[in-house]
Amino acid sequence: VNQAQTPGATSLAPESVLAALEAREADDLAALRHFVSIPSVSTEPSHAPDVRRAATYLSERLRSAGLHEVEIVDTPGHPVVLAAWRGQPSAPTILVYGHYDVQPPDPVDAWHSPPFEVTERGGRLYARGISDDKAPLSIALDTVAAYLQVSGALPLNVVFVFEGEEEVGSPNLPALLDARREQLAADLVVSADGGMWLPDHPTTIRSARGLASLELRVSAATKDLHSGRHGGGLANPLHAIASMIASLHDAAGRVAVEGFYEGVRPIPAALAQTTRELPFDDAAYLAETGAPATVGEVGFSTLERQWYRPTLELNGLWGGYTGAGSKTVLPHEAHAKISCRLVDDQDPERVLDAIERHLQRVCPPGVRLDVARGVNGARAYVVADDHPGLQAVQASLRATYGVEPWLVGMGGSVPICAAFKRVLACDTVFFSFAVGDEDIHAPNEFFRLRRWREGRRAWADLVARLPGALAHG
Amino acid sequence: VNQAQTPGATSLAPESVLAALEAREADDLAALRHFVSIPSVSTEPSHAPDVRRAATYLSERLRSAGLHEVEIVDTPGHPVVLAAWRGQPSAPTILVYGHYDVQPPDPVDAWHSPPFEVTERGGRLYARGISDDKAPLSIALDTVAAYLQVSGALPLNVVFVFEGEEEVGSPNLPALLDARREQLAADLVVSADGGMWLPDHPTTIRSARGLASLELRVSAATKDLHSGRHGGGLANPLHAIASMIASLHDAAGRVAVEGFYEGVRPIPAALAQTTRELPFDDAAYLAETGAPATVGEVGFSTLERQWYRPTLELNGLWGGYTGAGSKTVLPHEAHAKISCRLVDDQDPERVLDAIERHLQRVCPPGVRLDVARGVNGARAYVVADDHPGLQAVQASLRATYGVEPWLVGMGGSVPICAAFKRVLACDTVFFSFAVGDEDIHAPNEFFRLRRWREGRRAWADLVARLPGALAHG
Repeated sequence: VNQAQTPGATSLAPESVLAALEAREADDLAALRHFVSIPSVSTEPSHAPDVRRAATYLSERLRSAGLHEVEIVDTPGHPVVLAAWRGQPSAPTILVYGHYDVQPPDPVDAWHSPPFEVTERGGRLYARGISDDKAPLSIALDTVAAYLQVSGALPLNVVFVFEGEEEVGSPNLPALLDARREQLAADLVVSADGGMWLPDHPTTIRSARGLASLELRVSAATKDLHSGRHGGGLANPLHAIASMIASLHDAAGRVAVEGFYEGVRPIPAALAQTTRELPFDDAAYLAETGAPATVGEVGFSTLERQWYRPTLELNGLWGGYTGAGSKTVLPHEAHAKISCRLVDDQDPERVLDAIERHLQRVCPPGVRLDVARGVNGARAYVVADDHPGLQAVQASLRATYGVEPWLVGMGGSVPICAAFKRVLACDTVFFSFAVGDEDIHAPNEFFRLRRWREGRRAWADLVARLPGALAHG
Repeated sequence: VNQAQTPGATSLAPESVLAALEAREADDLAALRHFVSIPSVSTEPSHAPDVRRAATYLSERLRSAGLHEVEIVDTPGHPVVLAAWRGQPSAPTILVYGHYDVQPPDPVDAWHSPPFEVTERGGRLYARGISDDKAPLSIALDTVAAYLQVSGALPLNVVFVFEGEEEVGSPNLPALLDARREQLAADLVVSADGGMWLPDHPTTIRSARGLASLELRVSAATKDLHSGRHGGGLANPLHAIASMIASLHDAAGRVAVEGFYEGVRPIPAALAQTTRELPFDDAAYLAETGAPATVGEVGFSTLERQWYRPTLELNGLWGGYTGAGSKTVLPHEAHAKISCRLVDDQDPERVLDAIERHLQRVCPPGVRLDVARGVNGARAYVVADDHPGLQAVQASLRATYGVEPWLVGMGGSVPICAAFKRVLACDTVFFSFAVGDEDIHAPNEFFRLRRWREGRRAWADLVARLPGALAHG
């Protein structure tokens, strides 16, 4: 890091806090290892006790870090962990958001080391949930702990909100925010969930796509039938679902659902220009993913399609005999899971209305269609380029890395941003040190040890920088 | 049964044999119960010892029935059980075919009684494999045993060929027929596999559809990816496979694969007429299956589509996340199992060539396609209306039931008919007392106890009738 390269790149982090963070490294890493060993898979009901165990562990870490008001708040789903430090009545308050739940580790066979045991290989820490979001969350917590350890105080007030249902769409967080709106009042949400675009250059997120999902079931007979006796006489639900799915996109890769693009705006020229200048290479991306070609909506670059255009994507599809060898059945039902990433002003419910109308319209004769909507709908989120919080985040990255951070879009979704805005009237900035290539939601998820150290220094700077930034904002 | 209703309906079965069959009922049923209790699932390698156990048991039954040349012949797959009685050098020889392997019982939860334990309810015997093909096979064996018990002789020569791989497409039977062609030489194959169309009227099968199958895999990236980060940038194999599958049929329900219909002839006018006169009611069929509508190739009746027209049918389709709840992955591969029922002169390999060409042609950009052909290819089989074997079978049904049997098609496949014709130059007639509604290949397979008794009387008649019929034919 050569801070001299970039003007205004002087870190505001107190030397004593940086020293404390270095001294705490082994202990904090041990704590992270334990945190990750708890399989807090929120999508699987059988793991509910593990999710609660992770919440309990987190509350203990917050308490021992010197936070007050530490509380495990029950919800109809998994609990939310709250904590606060309010020792600077005249300074601004930030709400630090993160989540302690994780995706399922499936397919477990594809992991090179046990998913719920941190394994270090080549400067990377491998484990389910370490990148999304246990290490980024821990970075924020450890940095605050270091401040309190050194001086017993922070330069601003902090409220922590760590939820256990991010991976299932945060169904209960908005109601909790509403119920605790006075307690959780803040000037800015700093999300420890999110992540950077590249491993070798700091980036800041200007937007995140929204989400809307549904599941469909197509059925014909009441049971699987012999494909010899019955084949040709009745509709095959697998054919039916295939034709319905095929109808969802046109030849140009656009979503062919009437009304789907309602609320989508053209990509601003300046943003398109910035995005074009980013160092993205389709060939390198294909080498990374192993796919034979980039494919998608005609007329947009790969990055534009992944960040600034909506998608309609199948996440799962199944029906009939899927075991080894052959079984000559005429299956009686077929299933598909669909999720959409949304941009700009797309409304999740209206998007689902449009898809459902489309599916009903194209459903062929001889089958029945049932649609179930997901509970994880969320609008897209965008933060203005001149927002003082965003400016502070960029300054902290500049101070930590000595280079100018790039402004990027986020293809994924952080549904609670919209809730923070609606309920707490509070904007969100992302300040995570995860990187987008870390195989979150896939086997062999990892987090870079280097980024863990950089993130702690950057958080120390941000905590020092925000009081001034928000006061002038 | 009122034999006076139908001219020429006098049974040729010796009274002594019919009496012996009645006296043997309890013992033969007990034997059937034991036979069915052996889970001889040929499609699952873990059941290989059970398949062999069933072969051993069958060989013991044949030996105790008085058959000679009883042998368990090993193959690269499951064994074939052979036996013979050759006490009438001047009389014709029939080859009795059946199979002792069964389909998997999955889904086991859907069974109302244990699949490998015969449970009698309302005149029906429930168990996996009892209709397909353990009871029909046992009927033939028990009837021959009754003849030998009564007089120590049969009026013709019999060779039994009971295989253990019918449910996996009889991959090793043709080679065995070839290796033993002198030993297995016969004037007619009588198949105890097949089945009648209706429970309340005797029917005879004039044709069986052929079979050709393949499995496809469509892949993009080397692993599942996060649908937020990557969605919109790469092809989704589930969309790709859906569009490929949707392209396999046109709006009129015809297979839209160029060359697929090569070798398919128009349904003869007389056969169409006979078929139209059969008591088939779409509404009753829908009530039986629970499907909302009959669907298929435009311009043909349901029976025509199921018996005399080819199909291309998905048996399985899967990819991505198929568990409970949601998982926002961009799946990296998708799979489908396809099987076709063939008619007339369709050649299985040419049909698969055509499908593979079609799939390669419609495979969208951004994915890779791999196709694996099934080993169970078989041409359709048709027996001429005036064939002496078919005439004898119809006469035996007339004598047993006192009504004129109907000539019907079989939607399913008995791939070995083509092998019997090719290797042994021998035609096949079907003489099974299973009925097509008995949920073979599905949960709660059953066989009618009444048909078991009728089948034994009919077989006693056929054994007595065939020497004359084949001599005059």
